[in-house]
Amino acid sequence: MKKIAMLGSGFIGRFYADSLQGYRSKDKIVTIYSRKAESAKKFADDYDVPFHTDNLEAAIARPEVDVVCIALPNNKHEEAVLLCCKHKKAVICTKPLGRNAAEAKRMLEAVEKAGVFHGYLEDLVYTPKFLKAHESVKNGALGRILWAKSRETHPGPHSDWFWDIEQAGGGCILDLGCHCVEIGRSYIGKDIKPIEVMCWADTQVKPIDAEDHAIGLVKYENGAIGQFEVSWTFRGGLDLRDEVMGTEGTIWINSFLRTGFEMFTSGKGADYVAEKAESNTGWLFPVGDELNELGYNHMFMDMFRSMEKGTLAKETFYDGYVVNAVLDAAYKSAKTKLWEPVNLEIWRGKSGVSKDSHLQSYDDDHYLVKEEVTHYGAKKWIIKNKKTGKISERVES
Amino acid sequence: MKKIAMLGSGFIGRFYADSLQGYRSKDKIVTIYSRKAESAKKFADDYDVPFHTDNLEAAIARPEVDVVCIALPNNKHEEAVLLCCKHKKAVICTKPLGRNAAEAKRMLEAVEKAGVFHGYLEDLVYTPKFLKAHESVKNGALGRILWAKSRETHPGPHSDWFWDIEQAGGGCILDLGCHCVEIGRSYIGKDIKPIEVMCWADTQVKPIDAEDHAIGLVKYENGAIGQFEVSWTFRGGLDLRDEVMGTEGTIWINSFLRTGFEMFTSGKGADYVAEKAESNTGWLFPVGDELNELGYNHMFMDMFRSMEKGTLAKETFYDGYVVNAVLDAAYKSAKTKLWEPVNLEIWRGKSGVSKDSHLQSYDDDHYLVKEEVTHYGAKKWIIKNKKTGKISERVES
Amino acid sequence: MKKIAMLGSGFIGRFYADSLQGYRSKDKIVTIYSRKAESAKKFADDYDVPFHTDNLEAAIARPEVDVVCIALPNNKHEEAVLLCCKHKKAVICTKPLGRNAAEAKRMLEAVEKAGVFHGYLEDLVYTPKFLKAHESVKNGALGRILWAKSRETHPGPHSDWFWDIEQAGGGCILDLGCHCVEIGRSYIGKDIKPIEVMCWADTQVKPIDAEDHAIGLVKYENGAIGQFEVSWTFRGGLDLRDEVMGTEGTIWINSFLRTGFEMFTSGKGADYVAEKAESNTGWLFPVGDELNELGYNHMFMDMFRSMEKGTLAKETFYDGYVVNAVLDAAYKSAKTKLWEPVNLEIWRGKSGVSKDSHLQSYDDDHYLVKEEVTHYGAKKWIIKNKKTGKISERVES
Amino acid sequence: MKKIAMLGSGFIGRFYADSLQGYRSKDKIVTIYSRKAESAKKFADDYDVPFHTDNLEAAIARPEVDVVCIALPNNKHEEAVLLCCKHKKAVICTKPLGRNAAEAKRMLEAVEKAGVFHGYLEDLVYTPKFLKAHESVKNGALGRILWAKSRETHPGPHSDWFWDIEQAGGGCILDLGCHCVEIGRSYIGKDIKPIEVMCWADTQVKPIDAEDHAIGLVKYENGAIGQFEVSWTFRGGLDLRDEVMGTEGTIWINSFLRTGFEMFTSGKGADYVAEKAESNTGWLFPVGDELNELGYNHMFMDMFRSMEKGTLAKETFYDGYVVNAVLDAAYKSAKTKLWEPVNLEIWRGKSGVSKDSHLQSYDDDHYLVKEEVTHYGAKKWIIKNKKTGKISERVES
Repeated sequence: MKKIAMLGSGFIGRFYADSLQGYRSKDKIVTIYSRKAESAKKFADDYDVPFHTDNLEAAIARPEVDVVCIALPNNKHEEAVLLCCKHKKAVICTKPLGRNAAEAKRMLEAVEKAGVFHGYLEDLVYTPKFLKAHESVKNGALGRILWAKSRETHPGPHSDWFWDIEQAGGGCILDLGCHCVEIGRSYIGKDIKPIEVMCWADTQVKPIDAEDHAIGLVKYENGAIGQFEVSWTFRGGLDLRDEVMGTEGTIWINSFLRTGFEMFTSGKGADYVAEKAESNTGWLFPVGDELNELGYNHMFMDMFRSMEKGTLAKETFYDGYVVNAVLDAAYKSAKTKLWEPVNLEIWRGKSGVSKDSHLQSYDDDHYLVKEEVTHYGAKKWIIKNKKTGKISERVES
Repeated sequence: MKKIAMLGSGFIGRFYADSLQGYRSKDKIVTIYSRKAESAKKFADDYDVPFHTDNLEAAIARPEVDVVCIALPNNKHEEAVLLCCKHKKAVICTKPLGRNAAEAKRMLEAVEKAGVFHGYLEDLVYTPKFLKAHESVKNGALGRILWAKSRETHPGPHSDWFWDIEQAGGGCILDLGCHCVEIGRSYIGKDIKPIEVMCWADTQVKPIDAEDHAIGLVKYENGAIGQFEVSWTFRGGLDLRDEVMGTEGTIWINSFLRTGFEMFTSGKGADYVAEKAESNTGWLFPVGDELNELGYNHMFMDMFRSMEKGTLAKETFYDGYVVNAVLDAAYKSAKTKLWEPVNLEIWRGKSGVSKDSHLQSYDDDHYLVKEEVTHYGAKKWIIKNKKTGKISERVES
Repeated sequence: MKKIAMLGSGFIGRFYADSLQGYRSKDKIVTIYSRKAESAKKFADDYDVPFHTDNLEAAIARPEVDVVCIALPNNKHEEAVLLCCKHKKAVICTKPLGRNAAEAKRMLEAVEKAGVFHGYLEDLVYTPKFLKAHESVKNGALGRILWAKSRETHPGPHSDWFWDIEQAGGGCILDLGCHCVEIGRSYIGKDIKPIEVMCWADTQVKPIDAEDHAIGLVKYENGAIGQFEVSWTFRGGLDLRDEVMGTEGTIWINSFLRTGFEMFTSGKGADYVAEKAESNTGWLFPVGDELNELGYNHMFMDMFRSMEKGTLAKETFYDGYVVNAVLDAAYKSAKTKLWEPVNLEIWRGKSGVSKDSHLQSYDDDHYLVKEEVTHYGAKKWIIKNKKTGKISERVES
Repeated sequence: MKKIAMLGSGFIGRFYADSLQGYRSKDKIVTIYSRKAESAKKFADDYDVPFHTDNLEAAIARPEVDVVCIALPNNKHEEAVLLCCKHKKAVICTKPLGRNAAEAKRMLEAVEKAGVFHGYLEDLVYTPKFLKAHESVKNGALGRILWAKSRETHPGPHSDWFWDIEQAGGGCILDLGCHCVEIGRSYIGKDIKPIEVMCWADTQVKPIDAEDHAIGLVKYENGAIGQFEVSWTFRGGLDLRDEVMGTEGTIWINSFLRTGFEMFTSGKGADYVAEKAESNTGWLFPVGDELNELGYNHMFMDMFRSMEKGTLAKETFYDGYVVNAVLDAAYKSAKTKLWEPVNLEIWRGKSGVSKDSHLQSYDDDHYLVKEEVTHYGAKKWIIKNKKTGKISERVES
């Protein structure tokens, strides 16, 4: 059983609390900090938390606290992490880790120096679908991975601080792209180095200083490509979709908008309001158990089990740091319009991985380009001469 | 925290154990009974259970046991329930409750007389999708419910006893239809009396005495219709789909085969075997978290919370009894080829509910049949004279 | 090139005309009859038809007419067919052929006696999806067919005469069930005799004399089961879905509501009205080319090519007659609550087809019930002793 | 009625012929040219064509020919077009128009100088789904278009010449990207100028000189973004999907792999081979009517009707030229790793279109960032001060 200090009582803090104390959980939130005292009080009442405060250090320092869960605006992460280090508390921090790689690196170095358990709360690599898909990929079901795309778009976040570039550190690239980059890395291999990034970003709709729409390409050392598509201007709900392409197969995942539950309502029967659905009549696509589908349950299970076993969590501050470094390159690229290198002062994976050699011989003199069955039923091979490069066709006689 | 005696170490016993001890659960299995001693031993090792036995009463009677979970073949349910009553243990029993309504009624009467907590483990009314859909229906999003269909088909069960009519008590009607009937009842209203049943059943493929395919209609007192489609001959995996039709909308749920995760694999990359998929290459549709999607987590959460709060579970032996009574009528109808009445000696819902009056007036002299917009954009009303019954059309001038 | 007399200028007449004169067609409508002169005039203007009239015989008798296309209310089909016979015109008639089998039989005998070409315009067995699915079934991709279900439900027809039982001859069973029965027959085999029918029908919502919701089972001589689900009370658009189950596979077809085109609109951009969609905001599922998707193009292509080649159309009045006979039994069953025999005074398929023998031997003494791979990777066979009937399990050692 | 000279007897020539002479068509192929005499002969036999030849000019020059249909490898387009101009024949040419913009420009100038009818056979902007989606977009259902993505990937083309960079002029960017670019242009507005392109391309799998995988971004003068994803390495069949995002909605189209027809087959019933499906067992997703779904019928209908009416086709050589210019920039960008300008010496749309002003006022002092309903049911507005830029929240009291 773990006793938890929750920092932050907003939308994400409540999501975390629902998951942490959900099902038949043995874990318990014992202190709650909020920037506003009345919010801390409200949260304490709702989740039966014995201690509430608007003093950050007070929430962390209490002796009964085993682990601190950071659910604060981005600009407050570093301060909270440093306090956890000071009081030698295990710490798990929401995404993105920092507003940039410099911040993230300081946090990583602090927890490692302090020797406290740390976890990076990237829920979307813990969704049940991702976990199963990722296992298939690791087992080779898709062959060599060529491309991994992750898309997260919706009509914009709930809290005001997201829209303020000082507190948030950026727009939808930072807010949503951090998920996408970690998903891409995971499919391609977390030990494969991201090399450079090309990113387009614009503020197409909202009256804000940060970007509200962006698309980026992340090139990995082995030639694989990660892609992110993020936006705060999408209309239609929460669009969470991933696609992976390998030499032997593909995976498509729709995590929210089409999960096997479809409802039509004329709206005359009742004023039904579906969460995040952008409409409450017509065809709706509710999600049965959002907490589980969005990965919160499996994420906290991994964090707490790792803490108990004394092992690293699947997602650590190091991962959060790598993601921040990729996003830094994306922001730079969006301005320079160039492919920008990913600067990783700390890198713990492989180095010098060249694109795998993958040419397949047809016979001594030729490579195989494609084998297929023609529409009249014959087998056909398109081949390439190894010396001359000439393409030709052989059809089964 | 609850200490559990698990009876049965087969496919379903393991599913239950995975759910009971899953996530960060505070509950724990403390004894395991199996008909075969070595199976009990194996289960005890796998799930870290301190006591294992092939003596049924021994597993139940131990003082540390709070609650008994029955995961045995159908013909063993009654004996186990009576032992729980004898030892005053809370008891939760897998589906179907009995092999017929007479057995189920005796079990219901026994637990009520003994005053022990009892729950009926009908997992499919606890799936996250069902819970959300059911709430929408209760809130009126579909208006008045007209029809509720539930389909469960697959290529046949895993254990041998299912195929033996003596142990199982029946074929796919009993094994799968019990889910479908309870799903239908839940959407239409558990206080609405099922009146009569028409059922077709046949043994189309398997060399067995029981039916391997059946379709049934269940008529409710308010005019609503429940429908079940069950089979052990379906090819393509586990097909779990429900549909509900109301005056103001519809719900379609696909609980297993199309849940937003789609994978293609050529099979060359790896010998990937997907659970229950009937194939391991080509397009596959894995389910991320089967335990959660199939309702086990929410079911046990309800059972144990109810036990702690001293309230009835959402599904009790009474529900299991009603389901058995409906299925008895289905079996009889399959033989007599007649609509057979549902005999409910115990009925705790409403009585004498007539079909709701639902005629909508257009004006003093006419009922409204349909209002629509024609393809050239005018409004049109099809109406019926209240006295003469004549149908006519009015088009907006 | 064919010159066509169109009888009927309503919703279905216009659908037919759009298809007949669509693409780069060489065929042409040369006369149009409507019960109302002004409707005939309007149609003639819209489709560039040289002759229009409200005199039925006048439209048919004109010498330039090669073929007559009947798109009239059900109670006018027989009169129109007899006039075609009198004037020796090829005739193609909309669905259902008659209001009952007696009417249909008279029409069939009339055209055969007159020796004119005749076709039954059952468009839904000509949809591109059906044609491809049916070919797969014929080629054995699903093995032996066990069950074929067809569902057609929507919020009710457009014209007033449908709601008048005298003109229509029935409610949604006749209007929609005729499609479903022919789809079922086609998958199971048009030479396999439908034997008996069980049908539930009710008027759940509309203020009409006919049924607005019905479900029926059609038993075939070889043990296969057809099923229809029809309603005029469905909310959510036009629901056209078929399912087929065979010993080696399954087919699911959604012909209208989910065909690969998904649109979300807030409704602020424009007052977009999608056809039959029941809503013009939120998630919509438009169909690209309704005429083609609903089978009209392929149906008329078959009709006119058959006429030119002097062969029978795929769907003839004989098929229309068989469908009416099945629906007569359905109506009777809905009243008597019994399985009612299908009376086929004319039957041109096979007779005395028993259920196929299908038991598969495991070894000399046992039948195979099921072969599967257990979750720990071993092969398992569930078998049945041929003499004792005892079920047992063998697991690969 | 039109008499057609078909140039090319390969895969695409046969697709065209099936469409041109399909349904009840009044049009007819009267000459066929192939580079190989025996292929011309075979085609003439199969499609009942009176004249066949391996002499290009001979096929074009014949007096009975009204229109020439070019279905040749990319490097033969210009020669064929020039011969059509010489003989004053209407000409319709397959995609891409040229191997590059210079070739395309010469073809455009030639047909305009010769004054012959010309059409660009871009079938994918004629699919029924595209036509309906495009009309919705034009009518404003999605508001202002922000992003239009088109994806075409498959396991590689059928004929050998595609794989030879000299004949083809490029790899999958040219072969498939030409479709995607025209789809993107059409949604964003064909009168909006494409300004610059960023493209990543690589040869990840095949032993060829051209790229087998590429992703590109096309920036338009009004700030909208087009995106293409193309590959010859995708496993799983033919993946044709488009997505459009606007300020008021979104469109998702899956044109091939998920169109409402789903089939499972164990493969034991028959050796069923589905077209392009990459597997013939397990779950398959056949397309009912490929010709119609892929746009061929509607494309030729537009071409021939335009020819008869003396109007421009929807797609002309000018469109083909613009597409080639965008792809030229894509190829250049893939090498330079820079955003490359699109060089359009001929431009017939609007110029100087700035990003639309789109800020929405909340009150005199504030812009509206987002309006939403909180999870506890209150209305909330996130607003931005017009002067200070400060973000704040107002919640309905």
